[in-house]
Amino acid sequence: MKEIERKYLVTDEILHVIKYLQSKKIEQGYISNIDGKTVRVRTKGEKGYLTIKGKTVGISRDEFEYEIPFSDAKHLLTDFCSKVLEKERYDIIIGEKKWEIDVFHGKLEGLIIAEIELESETEEYSLPDWIQKDVSDDPQYYNSNLIEKE
Amino acid sequence: MKEIERKYLVTDEILHVIKYLQSKKIEQGYISNIDGKTVRVRTKGEKGYLTIKGKTVGISRDEFEYEIPFSDAKHLLTDFCSKVLEKERYDIIIGEKKWEIDVFHGKLEGLIIAEIELESETEEYSLPDWIQKDVSDDPQYYNSNLIEKE
Repeated sequence: MKEIERKYLVTDEILHVIKYLQSKKIEQGYISNIDGKTVRVRTKGEKGYLTIKGKTVGISRDEFEYEIPFSDAKHLLTDFCSKVLEKERYDIIIGEKKWEIDVFHGKLEGLIIAEIELESETEEYSLPDWIQKDVSDDPQYYNSNLIEKE
Repeated sequence: MKEIERKYLVTDEILHVIKYLQSKKIEQGYISNIDGKTVRVRTKGEKGYLTIKGKTVGISRDEFEYEIPFSDAKHLLTDFCSKVLEKERYDIIIGEKKWEIDVFHGKLEGLIIAEIELESETEEYSLPDWIQKDVSDDPQYYNSNLIEKE
């Protein structure tokens, strides 16, 4: 399937929004990252995932995601990924659209990113007032590049 | 899990053995092959698989295999793999052990390889008389290297 998403930096104000919400811990690493095509391993809460993503074109990319046993994901993170990124994921629904808020840990502590998944590249939606800056097109905020800062 | 296997070149005599057997067509490619760690996509008959294998140590390597939709596998072969290898797979049971016979096509036409999967590195088994040469330790016969000849 196609993944179409926009990604934003957010202001600290978001901390008041998510303070009382449940989050899930995400650990993720990359088995490979070749020419923008990535093979990602992720644990999210108690689940494991293997995700293959194509090169980003505009704000779209091919995505193939498979759930795998949690213990496999942990093993793959340890033995197949040179670096592992940690973040807390909060889901917020605003006007029927789901925003995913990622609060990073480790060396990326302090970084908070909000993502919204869209049905099409031209879909319209409203921006919450804690949105700071659109970084969808900025490769330094690709997760596969952020992990290099770990 | 661990994959422990031995790999052999075989004589033409095998053609008489497999002549009346059913085979399954295998197409496979590699999304990545980094330092002997591979991410492989395969179609086998009407099924699709995604397989992550670790570096070979002796005749063992870690292996994580997941069945995926056939249409996903076809898409991944086309868009994520620079080369695709084709072969016919025949399974033969000899003395309770399964041998997998791969008859290669394309530029590897004429190459036939037999593999046996073992419970341990020291397991004993008998060699059929169509076995020619043990190539388990020869990197040029790793599938991830054979594909470079396509």
